[in-house]
Amino acid sequence: LRTGFPEVIWGPGKTPDQIAQIMAVMRQRTAVVMATRIESDVYTILQKKVRGLQYFELAKICAIAPPIIEPRFDGIIGILSAGTADLPVAEEAAVTAELSGFRVQRLWDVGVAGIHRLLSNRHLLESVNVLIVVAGMEGALPSVVAGLADCPVIAVPTSIGYGASFGGLAPLLTMLNSCAAGVGVVNIDNGFGAAVLAGQILRTCEKLR
Amino acid sequence: LRTGFPEVIWGPGKTPDQIAQIMAVMRQRTAVVMATRIESDVYTILQKKVRGLQYFELAKICAIAPPIIEPRFDGIIGILSAGTADLPVAEEAAVTAELSGFRVQRLWDVGVAGIHRLLSNRHLLESVNVLIVVAGMEGALPSVVAGLADCPVIAVPTSIGYGASFGGLAPLLTMLNSCAAGVGVVNIDNGFGAAVLAGQILRTCEKLR
Amino acid sequence: LRTGFPEVIWGPGKTPDQIAQIMAVMRQRTAVVMATRIESDVYTILQKKVRGLQYFELAKICAIAPPIIEPRFDGIIGILSAGTADLPVAEEAAVTAELSGFRVQRLWDVGVAGIHRLLSNRHLLESVNVLIVVAGMEGALPSVVAGLADCPVIAVPTSIGYGASFGGLAPLLTMLNSCAAGVGVVNIDNGFGAAVLAGQILRTCEKLR
Amino acid sequence: LRTGFPEVIWGPGKTPDQIAQIMAVMRQRTAVVMATRIESDVYTILQKKVRGLQYFELAKICAIAPPIIEPRFDGIIGILSAGTADLPVAEEAAVTAELSGFRVQRLWDVGVAGIHRLLSNRHLLESVNVLIVVAGMEGALPSVVAGLADCPVIAVPTSIGYGASFGGLAPLLTMLNSCAAGVGVVNIDNGFGAAVLAGQILRTCEKLR
Amino acid sequence: LRTGFPEVIWGPGKTPDQIAQIMAVMRQRTAVVMATRIESDVYTILQKKVRGLQYFELAKICAIAPPIIEPRFDGIIGILSAGTADLPVAEEAAVTAELSGFRVQRLWDVGVAGIHRLLSNRHLLESVNVLIVVAGMEGALPSVVAGLADCPVIAVPTSIGYGASFGGLAPLLTMLNSCAAGVGVVNIDNGFGAAVLAGQILRTCEKLR
Amino acid sequence: LRTGFPEVIWGPGKTPDQIAQIMAVMRQRTAVVMATRIESDVYTILQKKVRGLQYFELAKICAIAPPIIEPRFDGIIGILSAGTADLPVAEEAAVTAELSGFRVQRLWDVGVAGIHRLLSNRHLLESVNVLIVVAGMEGALPSVVAGLADCPVIAVPTSIGYGASFGGLAPLLTMLNSCAAGVGVVNIDNGFGAAVLAGQILRTCEKLR
Amino acid sequence: LRTGFPEVIWGPGKTPDQIAQIMAVMRQRTAVVMATRIESDVYTILQKKVRGLQYFELAKICAIAPPIIEPRFDGIIGILSAGTADLPVAEEAAVTAELSGFRVQRLWDVGVAGIHRLLSNRHLLESVNVLIVVAGMEGALPSVVAGLADCPVIAVPTSIGYGASFGGLAPLLTMLNSCAAGVGVVNIDNGFGAAVLAGQILRTCEKLR
Amino acid sequence: LRTGFPEVIWGPGKTPDQIAQIMAVMRQRTAVVMATRIESDVYTILQKKVRGLQYFELAKICAIAPPIIEPRFDGIIGILSAGTADLPVAEEAAVTAELSGFRVQRLWDVGVAGIHRLLSNRHLLESVNVLIVVAGMEGALPSVVAGLADCPVIAVPTSIGYGASFGGLAPLLTMLNSCAAGVGVVNIDNGFGAAVLAGQILRTCEKLR
Ligand SMILES: Nc1ncnc2c1ncn2[C@@H]1O[C@H](COP(=O)(O)O)[C@@H](O)[C@H]1O
Ligand SMILES: Nc1ncnc2c1ncn2[C@@H]1O[C@H](COP(=O)(O)O)[C@@H](O)[C@H]1O
Ligand SMILES: Nc1ncnc2c1ncn2[C@@H]1O[C@H](COP(=O)(O)O)[C@@H](O)[C@H]1O
Ligand SMILES: Nc1ncnc2c1ncn2[C@@H]1O[C@H](COP(=O)(O)O)[C@@H](O)[C@H]1O
Ligand SMILES: [Mg+2]
Ligand SMILES: [Mg+2]
Ligand SMILES: [Mg+2]
Ligand SMILES: [Mg+2]
Ligand SMILES: [Mg+2]
Ligand SMILES: [Mg+2]
Ligand SMILES: [Mg+2]
Ligand SMILES: [Mg+2]
Repeated sequence: LRTGFPEVIWGPGKTPDQIAQIMAVMRQRTAVVMATRIESDVYTILQKKVRGLQYFELAKICAIAPPIIEPRFDGIIGILSAGTADLPVAEEAAVTAELSGFRVQRLWDVGVAGIHRLLSNRHLLESVNVLIVVAGMEGALPSVVAGLADCPVIAVPTSIGYGASFGGLAPLLTMLNSCAAGVGVVNIDNGFGAAVLAGQILRTCEKLR
Repeated sequence: LRTGFPEVIWGPGKTPDQIAQIMAVMRQRTAVVMATRIESDVYTILQKKVRGLQYFELAKICAIAPPIIEPRFDGIIGILSAGTADLPVAEEAAVTAELSGFRVQRLWDVGVAGIHRLLSNRHLLESVNVLIVVAGMEGALPSVVAGLADCPVIAVPTSIGYGASFGGLAPLLTMLNSCAAGVGVVNIDNGFGAAVLAGQILRTCEKLR
Repeated sequence: LRTGFPEVIWGPGKTPDQIAQIMAVMRQRTAVVMATRIESDVYTILQKKVRGLQYFELAKICAIAPPIIEPRFDGIIGILSAGTADLPVAEEAAVTAELSGFRVQRLWDVGVAGIHRLLSNRHLLESVNVLIVVAGMEGALPSVVAGLADCPVIAVPTSIGYGASFGGLAPLLTMLNSCAAGVGVVNIDNGFGAAVLAGQILRTCEKLR
Repeated sequence: LRTGFPEVIWGPGKTPDQIAQIMAVMRQRTAVVMATRIESDVYTILQKKVRGLQYFELAKICAIAPPIIEPRFDGIIGILSAGTADLPVAEEAAVTAELSGFRVQRLWDVGVAGIHRLLSNRHLLESVNVLIVVAGMEGALPSVVAGLADCPVIAVPTSIGYGASFGGLAPLLTMLNSCAAGVGVVNIDNGFGAAVLAGQILRTCEKLR
Repeated sequence: LRTGFPEVIWGPGKTPDQIAQIMAVMRQRTAVVMATRIESDVYTILQKKVRGLQYFELAKICAIAPPIIEPRFDGIIGILSAGTADLPVAEEAAVTAELSGFRVQRLWDVGVAGIHRLLSNRHLLESVNVLIVVAGMEGALPSVVAGLADCPVIAVPTSIGYGASFGGLAPLLTMLNSCAAGVGVVNIDNGFGAAVLAGQILRTCEKLR
Repeated sequence: LRTGFPEVIWGPGKTPDQIAQIMAVMRQRTAVVMATRIESDVYTILQKKVRGLQYFELAKICAIAPPIIEPRFDGIIGILSAGTADLPVAEEAAVTAELSGFRVQRLWDVGVAGIHRLLSNRHLLESVNVLIVVAGMEGALPSVVAGLADCPVIAVPTSIGYGASFGGLAPLLTMLNSCAAGVGVVNIDNGFGAAVLAGQILRTCEKLR
Repeated sequence: LRTGFPEVIWGPGKTPDQIAQIMAVMRQRTAVVMATRIESDVYTILQKKVRGLQYFELAKICAIAPPIIEPRFDGIIGILSAGTADLPVAEEAAVTAELSGFRVQRLWDVGVAGIHRLLSNRHLLESVNVLIVVAGMEGALPSVVAGLADCPVIAVPTSIGYGASFGGLAPLLTMLNSCAAGVGVVNIDNGFGAAVLAGQILRTCEKLR
Repeated sequence: LRTGFPEVIWGPGKTPDQIAQIMAVMRQRTAVVMATRIESDVYTILQKKVRGLQYFELAKICAIAPPIIEPRFDGIIGILSAGTADLPVAEEAAVTAELSGFRVQRLWDVGVAGIHRLLSNRHLLESVNVLIVVAGMEGALPSVVAGLADCPVIAVPTSIGYGASFGGLAPLLTMLNSCAAGVGVVNIDNGFGAAVLAGQILRTCEKLR
């Protein structure tokens, strides 16, 4: 992402020292620096090395950022999750989007097994401009949402499940085969990538204005 | 299936002659004889060899049976299908059930991409005693239905779809990972097996009475 | 599950504190609260936080429940397991069913490699109203049982096995391809889901009476 | 898609008669009616039954539509394809978008094995507002394009290839694992779905204006 | 196979002319020449080119052989098949064994869904020296047989089935995971290979005598 | 295995206490009791609970057995392994066979990448009566051996390898597709099962004498 | 491939007219034009449209080329095939190499089931500079060859086989897991690509001289 | 590898004692002894047992070797890696090549998402004689490189990635399906094998000179 956007570090396989060093270099160049997939024990070490580090526990994101980030783009990114266990992925998307200057509207626990919770929130589907839909297990939520909403839908399969989920393969295939058109799919557990794509959509609108 | 139930022939890989011969033997033993997966050109040959043969075109089922089969068991089997292309599998289930003496209630084209059509038929979900839910592509329908209905749900994935459907693997995995409990899954395109299981459930109730 | 049925918590990925809190809320609403996939060390912590907590060690289920649960429904759920290693999954099904008010008949270690043990228990197959059949490795037991029994069969593949079992894929495929009709399959290791489906079947009978 | 948008028929598994009938019904409701995956021999029959039918041979799309469709939305959908064999899928996307009232910019044969052809067209990447990138075989094009372009990228894997392509599985996995963020993937060969998603993005911009 | 054993031609992908030529060369060297996977229309052409050609229709084997082949080895190869559709593979094994000079005992249609047919033939299991067990769909028969019999069991999965059979993958995995030890598995539909292995076992015994 | 043969315990998932208890019961019934897949730390605990326990470290087998087991059957089981890392599986086969009263001839490290080591041991292939061939990685050894030897070959794929080995899937498929006929395959890492099958073959010969 | 090298057309999915047109354009630019995967009936049409067209039937290659192509590079490419059915792929490699100006040495039918045929040709392995090894079914040949030869080995899996070959997946995995280092693998049936890589190796040597 | 080349030990599954012992034997025979996949804690133990042991931390290689190894062959092996996380595999290739007496040119972090970094290093692609290209995630780099370079390309997929990478399957398939010919693929993470193949290529050139 260009000027004004966060620089991003992919945490896994990097030592706290390495992360701290990369952050130090990056903060020279940009106002917001973030690292994803940071477990809380890594954060505990990191916060001693990096001044002013924030931690978004559920999202497992560390960031150097202004205390309040004013949305810099018009439009709202709606983020839905099917189950409680999908929250870390959904929050990775939400925090990434907010740190990048987008307005986010969250709606958790609207899985298809209790379809009425989703239906009683239809106004939300209509008030946002792009939707990120996060679901594990059978991954059916994006199909239902895409049928209800009239905006682009980004589907994020998660590795939540067991047995015939095969590490997220089941919801991934579900989402790719969605009978409702207008759904773009990202990698399993890739909340970050979904937020970047959603952001790209709103930036495109900005440019078209 | 015991006395009074149809004898069943699996059509594929059998010549019309072989099917006719087996039917001749079976009709001695039982009032209803049926053969599944019979293409219309096979039926054209068969009807010349087998007296009184009926053909259920959409279901691809041939049967020797009384013109009207009075339901012999209490309870209703509701059969739902997601898309038009899933109809042959859904009809295989419906005709099998009816030939076996069960009452059937059909509801076609209630796929999750247009969830309101399903919701406006909720009374049907409440008025049946066991549900067979047939879906291809992403196969999300059984999860939604199981969340709405308060009866056993039998899920039938179909091979309808393309690409990442992988011949029905996608809806099969979806249904096995259903986040709504109370769903039993049968093989891809196995409408026949679903009807037998649904029938077994209603027979069990008969015995418990 | 509606009024009178247990509320259920899925244990994995939740801290003991979280489980205890959810249980506290749930026990306000219902007489039976249960949590599945609880390892014994988690139970050790939980029992200090939750008054009157029972633990079913083999089933890995924690529950708040009356000391004795009188069956509230007619009919018996027979539960068969193929090998000793399949017991935790079979017990997950059995305890779930009992906590939900169903009568359960257990039959362990009747795998197909010693078919006579199964055959010498045929009376059991005839005295129950719905069967849950749990098997890992090659998963052949449900096919044999469905051929012998005249009631609905719910097949549960387990992840017991190694090598070409591929985490339970082998018995899953076996069960889906069962040459005996009338078998519904649930996810790998999903004893809980099998019990819910079996319970749904008996409740359906209750309503039909 | 709502008012003003084409109604769409999925061709495979439908007889020419069925397609003609559905088209007749649909043309009452909407100005543009289209059917996808129509082979030329099916078109030959269809054109005798449906007055004013157009055929887009490469795209395998039949349509009833005004001779010229004026773009109804701002913004341009850029469509790139990697190889000649990917053209039918790319054209399915292009024609769907044009029939839906969007402006399309095509760029064919810019596969990564000859990266300079892509690079010498960088101005195109900068002049469009959303990109559809179609590729079979190894499916690497969307990753490269997403690194160069600053707009949303929709990746379409095709079944073009052989051997270890496994019917399009190879490019599908490639695209899901794209190291460049901001890529949404649709099903194998699903040019139609990509066009609908791209259209949704430009409509969202319209609403935000 | 050494002196005295048939020379074998694998039919698929060879023209009738090629097969005839290879047979002509081989018959110089050995008393028995056979070709497998020969469809009846290929045989019709072949019989005009090759003098004294026999055809085993069900087995799809063509052979030049003495009219009667006296068993040259002690011991009996028992061959069991689960379903009618598995017969061609079972016959490929049986005819190969007989042409190679072994005594064969056939037992067809003893699938596990009707376990009593198998059990009422237990004497056969006890009177043979090696068993070839052929099964498609869920492929459970070899496990049951290996538990009953006290001789080596060779398991042959077939591609008979549909959906989640995945071309014979399901019975293949079933047989590899057999909970009864003493089972060796050959490739899907490989009746020929099973007969060679069974023959090798009886020849080993011959040498040990 | 019948009278005189060892009773066998599958170690994984059992506590040392459970194993000790089962052993205590079994030793009443039979002269040889063995347990497979026993890590050395489990043995350390076991030996304190079970009197006279032997440990075969490489094979990971614990046994209660006479100090010397005289072969009770004619014939020799040759056991070959491809690489050093395959030794535990090969030894599982060897020790199982020896404890069951069979004569074993070992030949380690004769992988196909150094074909001359195998060829310079051809006399061994000719002096044994049945061969167990253990190989991981590409699993090519059984094909080569079956081409050289004139006795039954039992192929054991191992999980040794990485990457595209996919846990032993690669050598398993290799062995099932062996272009040399007369090869029976057992599950990945199943040295035990290979020994039982080899033993069954020699017992069959015993009976035929 | 640069100046002096053939221009190549991938035949599948192109009409004879399209192929003829592309050839016409290409022959302006280069001395040798070739098209791969051309069935003989397509050639029959093509030869009427393209003057001076040669056809290599086994290789399924059409070419416009001088009658004799003098080798333009030092070094010999040895090409080995395991079975007769692998010949089309091996010849695709051989003809591609020859048309590109390389010297080729063929060795057919040296599969590992008859290892002595390979061993009695060891001089060939030593007299060539790069080896292309083509094998289907279990695909073990490249491992054995790489152990014997002291030059780069290019392994080509073929789709020859059935059942657990899964369209060439089995030999592909075998070759990737080769225990002999120094083996590079190309796509299933990709004789063309193997020839290009072998040619690249000899050209590199040319430049290094 | 013959005289003068390092002897190599595969570290995983060997104790430090075993590795030390094998090294002691090997150093008698050859000037360079190396062991791969050695974690730093294993090295810490090893260095106390083996005199003069070097450790290449990133490559996870231990070696007994002269302090400086003069290149013994003409030509340069270029090694490219896509991402930082791919470095250990790239370094395994580089150190193996250097210890074997080859000249190596490294180029790290030239993944396709930032194609300009690769393009601005085109001179390197032209100055080397064989290329090893290491990439995880979508694995697209070798295709792009093979299109730019005029020398043999060896592609190494890595297990870096998550979700739909399936342990390196995604980049493996990508590389096998490369639309640019002239690419040979080795196993996932097999930097060692790639170096041996590259070395074989330069040795072949040496011999041809
Ligand atoms: N959670 C995430 N999922 C996917 N990609 C990510 C994630 N976090 C960071 N990235 C990508 O990884 C890149 C940084 O990788 P690295 O240089 O290894 O730190 C960023 O530019 C992002 O594109
Ligand atoms: N459409 C179907 N799907 C699955 N199983 C079927 C179907 N039709 C028949 N069968 C089963 O196939 C058996 C008959 O097979 P066969 O003896 O080959 O005709 C019946 O007893 C049924 O259990
Ligand atoms: N080429 C295509 N690929 C994917 N989906 C399509 C395609 N063409 C049509 N559809 C979808 O199929 C639906 C119509 O299906 P049907 O009712 O079977 O004609 C449309 O509403 C589209 O969403
Ligand atoms: N990193 C590596 N990747 C693949 N193969 C290796 C690697 N390191 C060593 N080898 C191979 O393993 C063999 C030694 O295996 P071992 O005898 O078990 O130590 C060597 O000859 C090499 O061919
Ligand atoms: Mg929508
Ligand atoms: Mg329900
Ligand atoms: Mg039954
Ligand atoms: Mg971009
Ligand atoms: Mg037995
Ligand atoms: Mg042999
Ligand atoms: Mg070599
Ligand atoms: Mg190149």
